Amino acid sequence: MGRVTERRKVLRIREGAVSERPDTLAGEEPLEIRLGGRPLAVTMRTPGDDFALAAGFLVSEGVLGRASELVRIAYCAGALVDGQNTYNTLDVRLAEGVAVPELTLERNVYTTSSCGVCGKASLDAVRTTARWEPEAPEAPRLDVEVLPLLPERLRAAQRVFDRTGGLHAAGLFTSEGELLDVREDVGRHNAVDKLVGAALQRDLLPLRDSVLMVSGRASFELVQKAVMAGIPALAAVSAPSSLAVDLAAETGTTLVGFLRGRSMNVYAGAERIALPAHAPTG
Amino acid sequence: MGRVTERRKVLRIREGAVSERPDTLAGEEPLEIRLGGRPLAVTMRTPGDDFALAAGFLVSEGVLGRASELVRIAYCAGALVDGQNTYNTLDVRLAEGVAVPELTLERNVYTTSSCGVCGKASLDAVRTTARWEPEAPEAPRLDVEVLPLLPERLRAAQRVFDRTGGLHAAGLFTSEGELLDVREDVGRHNAVDKLVGAALQRDLLPLRDSVLMVSGRASFELVQKAVMAGIPALAAVSAPSSLAVDLAAETGTTLVGFLRGRSMNVYAGAERIALPAHAPTG
Repeated sequence: MGRVTERRKVLRIREGAVSERPDTLAGEEPLEIRLGGRPLAVTMRTPGDDFALAAGFLVSEGVLGRASELVRIAYCAGALVDGQNTYNTLDVRLAEGVAVPELTLERNVYTTSSCGVCGKASLDAVRTTARWEPEAPEAPRLDVEVLPLLPERLRAAQRVFDRTGGLHAAGLFTSEGELLDVREDVGRHNAVDKLVGAALQRDLLPLRDSVLMVSGRASFELVQKAVMAGIPALAAVSAPSSLAVDLAAETGTTLVGFLRGRSMNVYAGAERIALPAHAPTG
Repeated sequence: MGRVTERRKVLRIREGAVSERPDTLAGEEPLEIRLGGRPLAVTMRTPGDDFALAAGFLVSEGVLGRASELVRIAYCAGALVDGQNTYNTLDVRLAEGVAVPELTLERNVYTTSSCGVCGKASLDAVRTTARWEPEAPEAPRLDVEVLPLLPERLRAAQRVFDRTGGLHAAGLFTSEGELLDVREDVGRHNAVDKLVGAALQRDLLPLRDSVLMVSGRASFELVQKAVMAGIPALAAVSAPSSLAVDLAAETGTTLVGFLRGRSMNVYAGAERIALPAHAPTG
């Protein structure tokens, strides 16, 4: 069964020289998340941190917000292949009174019968599901000189990446740039879910005064996950999408992209960043 | 409504200098794919090539393999927001007799009630769904000197990336390294679906003697899409996952990772590559 890394033989070709050797790869296995025994979702993920992943997934879906709403997560003992537990199926039990999402195919379809699916409907869906009011910054809390430290610190904390080169990372930082937690996964969304789920398990939501740093791009889905966890700022090494920027702007989330060295682009929520003096137009 | 790129204002910070200017972002909008009027899936994608995306998605799901199985794809005229068509909902009509997948939540759960979900079950599911027999290479057809040309040619063909830095690309090449087609999307899987769907529309499946090149990593899902389209070789700029390598090995697919300059790792299907002479062990 898959674990965090796996070894496979590989043919290495370097400038015409060929050799065969073992290589360490990022593990990838399906995880089936059940809710009260009923299948809810399957995600391809890097094994490990599975309970955190499931908890974070349910935060992103608007089901969980407090540790007390979660009674238990356990691997399904009956989920066997060749008599062995695969540790790829788990069941989540919610506290009594926690609303269970509708288990319909349309769960992720942000639309009504009278309204076509569109970006605006997606933004509205996040806003109406979010538990935390957007935090209005009374004063800039993020020093522009702190942000350039994050990618380096995230990279330094990535344990598996160094061996496989194949994992996305998500790091949670204080607004002073102190690393609180880091998680890795073959899927970016999973890395963030693991981070958020681990915080939920310690009942730390909403994650005020924190910054979420991701190794890749910033999609709508990643901003959504930040909003659902009450994280006020998201920084990414690469580009955001249009809808990511729109959602950040609508929810008062600070969105920083292309964070490389001391350069970055601020796409939304610039009022949270303490900036050097600047001419208002370029 | 979103299009391929969108403009947003951005605060640029470069080594302490701050300026405000317009920036071009990769568009991201939800696309709802309906099958015979019933919602099948929603994906966040870069608008454009939507019919190809839907067709390719259905190839990956094992529904489509021939152009004749597809009667029509059309935007839903009734999918309106504020009286305007969002072009974000489309309906696919299959030819009579084409089996429609079961529209259940468990659609992507590769498991039976008696068997836990696991990597092996995922591999089996692809093998039993695939329409094309794995092509056994009679002789090496991929010159090891051709592969290094692909990333550069893919990058040169990426039109939107240059403006936004935010799009994944998938390119289809002949085994001689000639670029046949390129598609871009905020999602890697969507870029591949667009490529495969466009080929299906021209009834070119299975895509024998071709190489699929992707700008990022090689996941299980990307190898699956190659297999379902009959593409015998997948090359990626970055690392593959363990399950991607396993699926490639099981289906006879050539899988190349870390393709950078004249260096690369061959994880599976090396017999398809014409290699320089080498010592069998490193």
